[in-house]
Amino acid sequence: MKIVLDIFGGDYAPVEAIKGAIEALKVFDDFSLILVGDEQIIKDELNNNKVKNQDRIEILHSTEIITNNESPAIAIRAKKDSSIVVGLNHLKYGNADAFVSAGSTGAVLTGATLLLKRITNVSRPALVPLLPTAKESNVVLIDCGANLDSRPETIVQFAKIGNAFCKSVLKIANPKVGLLNNGVEEDKGSETYRQVHKLLRENKSINFIGNVEARYILSGDIDVVVTDGFEGNIALKSSEGTALMMLKLIEKGIRTGGLRAKLGYLLLKPVFKDLKKVLDYNDYGGAVLAGLEKIVVKTHGSSKAKTFTNAILQARELILSNVVETIAQELLN
Amino acid sequence: MKIVLDIFGGDYAPVEAIKGAIEALKVFDDFSLILVGDEQIIKDELNNNKVKNQDRIEILHSTEIITNNESPAIAIRAKKDSSIVVGLNHLKYGNADAFVSAGSTGAVLTGATLLLKRITNVSRPALVPLLPTAKESNVVLIDCGANLDSRPETIVQFAKIGNAFCKSVLKIANPKVGLLNNGVEEDKGSETYRQVHKLLRENKSINFIGNVEARYILSGDIDVVVTDGFEGNIALKSSEGTALMMLKLIEKGIRTGGLRAKLGYLLLKPVFKDLKKVLDYNDYGGAVLAGLEKIVVKTHGSSKAKTFTNAILQARELILSNVVETIAQELLN
Repeated sequence: MKIVLDIFGGDYAPVEAIKGAIEALKVFDDFSLILVGDEQIIKDELNNNKVKNQDRIEILHSTEIITNNESPAIAIRAKKDSSIVVGLNHLKYGNADAFVSAGSTGAVLTGATLLLKRITNVSRPALVPLLPTAKESNVVLIDCGANLDSRPETIVQFAKIGNAFCKSVLKIANPKVGLLNNGVEEDKGSETYRQVHKLLRENKSINFIGNVEARYILSGDIDVVVTDGFEGNIALKSSEGTALMMLKLIEKGIRTGGLRAKLGYLLLKPVFKDLKKVLDYNDYGGAVLAGLEKIVVKTHGSSKAKTFTNAILQARELILSNVVETIAQELLN
Repeated sequence: MKIVLDIFGGDYAPVEAIKGAIEALKVFDDFSLILVGDEQIIKDELNNNKVKNQDRIEILHSTEIITNNESPAIAIRAKKDSSIVVGLNHLKYGNADAFVSAGSTGAVLTGATLLLKRITNVSRPALVPLLPTAKESNVVLIDCGANLDSRPETIVQFAKIGNAFCKSVLKIANPKVGLLNNGVEEDKGSETYRQVHKLLRENKSINFIGNVEARYILSGDIDVVVTDGFEGNIALKSSEGTALMMLKLIEKGIRTGGLRAKLGYLLLKPVFKDLKKVLDYNDYGGAVLAGLEKIVVKTHGSSKAKTFTNAILQARELILSNVVETIAQELLN
């Protein structure tokens, strides 16, 4: 198993990316890493971290970096020697199984969509984060922003991809699939969503439970929530923003609540720690771009070593889960 | 000032609606209430609550009730003697200034849109909740579900309505207006949102600060977040669901955390109480249907007395704020 890691993606690259890579290699010994980026800098960082035995590390030299400030479509075409393009090309030519990057989301999505082969019958790959739920299970929210203004048939494809993803990654035999909407009644939603509802209702291979209001995405009662990328992105980020606001309000309450509040906080520390862990799903890796013949994992731009480690281990698990084959099978239906 | 209260709307009607009405009348003496619903039941409830002096209470008899299970459009046309239709007609004929209901959202929206006059240049009224922020200010999110598949020009109207609403209700002189989107860059978003962005950018009367990701709705950095109803509904409910999940996780942590966690909870109780209060914005009243010549406040179906009281007081404040005139003025631009 070979996983390509973009050493020059993210706010804390290359230092944290290298550290994360070294840690990941210690957890399992059934995979190797291909570090893409400036060879000398990578070598220096490996030396700084006193990495002697480099059996499971290859270096793929690249000279350019794509930043968040450039147009993804232009940058992917112009910067042929960027870590993203060089890394993805390595997958394209069959030399690796997965690509992990904390770089520009747009560039990773555009690059992967342009350079990698799509699974048969997939017209558009979709972005899939695994979110925590109130029942401590996970929910698949698909698509979270790779596509906009999708046709109903494309959104039905997201449902199939999400269904397969849930089966192979979360090991749920018959996932409950819901359509994100502004009400549960079947005639709810925009024109596109009403058509998707009808198509999903008619689809015999999906356990479609109907429309789902955004309030219930994290309830744990649904396994796959299907949406176009625009709405999925809004649902995801609204959730993130609310969690952040709540943590800020709790912190402020503790800060201004005197000795009593501080003591209460100390006693409740394990609870808050658990809460942060559940909410900070970025710590568990990243969002997967699903629907391609290879695994692409995009982690948060602010990833530190631990997140890089987790994203690499997530890519490893995805390879082992046969998610690509499961999606391919699902799309034949 | 006369405010019509739908006594037969909501899960806890009529008992909690009546209680809420009685409490509201005690807070200020510059308004009177018109209770719409079955006269005998209302009289009995007033007697049960030992209301003697009924100077500021009128009863408007109606015999029918619209439930959440019927089609709003059909129900509004068929049930001419429902509390919603009778109440709204009372406004239509100039006998009251505001309507407050915890009944079917669809029926209140459809009824108000059909029966009440729109402000000049408003093609579609929009649903506006006031949400709490991390800075303990409020943010106007418009539209939250009254409209779907809106044209760009209609969404620009929402921006104008929200701008005026923010000026008159939140007393902010030059509100910062953002467009909900999946990224801050001006070319982000679906076709419709890209057009709205362009129109808002050209509009000289709005302090347009550009696109806003859903993560920042509750940041306190923006005063008005503009969106079509579908996306607004998803943002709002995703936020509600996340807040609920977090509270559940905290409760579970305390329940299973032994004596230590329970003691911690007791010490932090004031913080959690504040947190719940901030989050449960329904307690502050309801969402306003803005863009009509009268005030319509829709409170949550699960409203209890306190929420009814707050919704009535919110309607009173809206009347006093001259929000209708401010919107009318804004729409002339």
